[in-house]
Amino acid sequence: MDSQNVPKPTVKRLAMYHRCLESMIRNGRTNVSSKDIADLLGIKSSQVRKDLSYFGEFGKRGVGYSADRLLEGVSQILGMRKNWNFCIVGMGNLGMALANYAGLEKSGFFVRALFDNNPSKIGLPMPGELTIEPVNRLKRLVHEREISIGVIAVPGEVAQEIVDLLIASGVRGIINFAPVRLSIPEGVSIEDIDISVTFRSLAFSMSLDQVRQGKRI
Amino acid sequence: MDSQNVPKPTVKRLAMYHRCLESMIRNGRTNVSSKDIADLLGIKSSQVRKDLSYFGEFGKRGVGYSADRLLEGVSQILGMRKNWNFCIVGMGNLGMALANYAGLEKSGFFVRALFDNNPSKIGLPMPGELTIEPVNRLKRLVHEREISIGVIAVPGEVAQEIVDLLIASGVRGIINFAPVRLSIPEGVSIEDIDISVTFRSLAFSMSLDQVRQGKRI
Repeated sequence: MDSQNVPKPTVKRLAMYHRCLESMIRNGRTNVSSKDIADLLGIKSSQVRKDLSYFGEFGKRGVGYSADRLLEGVSQILGMRKNWNFCIVGMGNLGMALANYAGLEKSGFFVRALFDNNPSKIGLPMPGELTIEPVNRLKRLVHEREISIGVIAVPGEVAQEIVDLLIASGVRGIINFAPVRLSIPEGVSIEDIDISVTFRSLAFSMSLDQVRQGKRI
Repeated sequence: MDSQNVPKPTVKRLAMYHRCLESMIRNGRTNVSSKDIADLLGIKSSQVRKDLSYFGEFGKRGVGYSADRLLEGVSQILGMRKNWNFCIVGMGNLGMALANYAGLEKSGFFVRALFDNNPSKIGLPMPGELTIEPVNRLKRLVHEREISIGVIAVPGEVAQEIVDLLIASGVRGIINFAPVRLSIPEGVSIEDIDISVTFRSLAFSMSLDQVRQGKRI
């Protein structure tokens, strides 16, 4: 496998296939076809086959894939058999929601530190025997707790400053919830989460449904 | 422009162009050609040009389109510049974060009602002159406030029940944060949001970076 040549949209789709396979296996499926996956996700089965073919052959034409084997293969591709430690900066409602989201541990992502500069929050006990720490302890704790991912849940105005601090402290991956475009150096990865994109996509499907039913957009 | 005279296959393709453009812009593109879009979607670039020409000229031959301007134009065509009212069910940390997220209004999505059954939350004042209401008022408020989108921020165990209630009340679009697959009838649209997909996608990029630097995943 030559990971360097894998396009980013393929990576995103592989992550979706992964979730899809997990849920199929939970529902008792042992065999899946590219068409099963494609139908569930609303994409072309030729696209699914193409994405999987980047990494050699998992399945047999006409027979499909062993669901377990495929999940294992996709997981390996995605570097998902290892665990990752992350921290959250900004313990407003969003930071709190993430700190309490159990789904991440199941996927190998462990929250190891929580930061906020609000004096009324510092010291608050949190799940996992964590407490909320002041930002001036970030560098030290990122190092001590081997944290490689930082989640930005602070207001947009301070997001770049926090990202710079995280990266200077050794973090190599950023999940950004702030509604700003952040600049990061080569060798650091970032994922921006913008909820309004999801809302727009939903609104768009709803408009199409109206078109299908012969109403004006 | 009269949306009614646009052939349905064109509308469908415009939908695809819209998604495509959004993702290109997210990835930092500022200029796109009809060929870029065509190649990504596996259709002819002459078709893309023809579809876009229904609505006047967006770009220049040989130069391409400004990605932002084209997205704006396609959005207008698709009726995506209208406003949508939504409600949030489940006022835990996530619901609170969404109720306070200003980015949605900018995109035309207005929160009009907030629901929770926790007695300690009912009646709490919230931004936009809203208060948290008990779920037994949902049907009435969805109707009165012309709410067409419902956000599910409740635990997985009660998510299907809430979705059924929302749809029976007239909602046609669902944004689902609960980590369960929900069943919805024909004519209703849904978008699932699973944060762990984003974490996995990040972890994968980080693993790829290590590969590029010659380390093992």
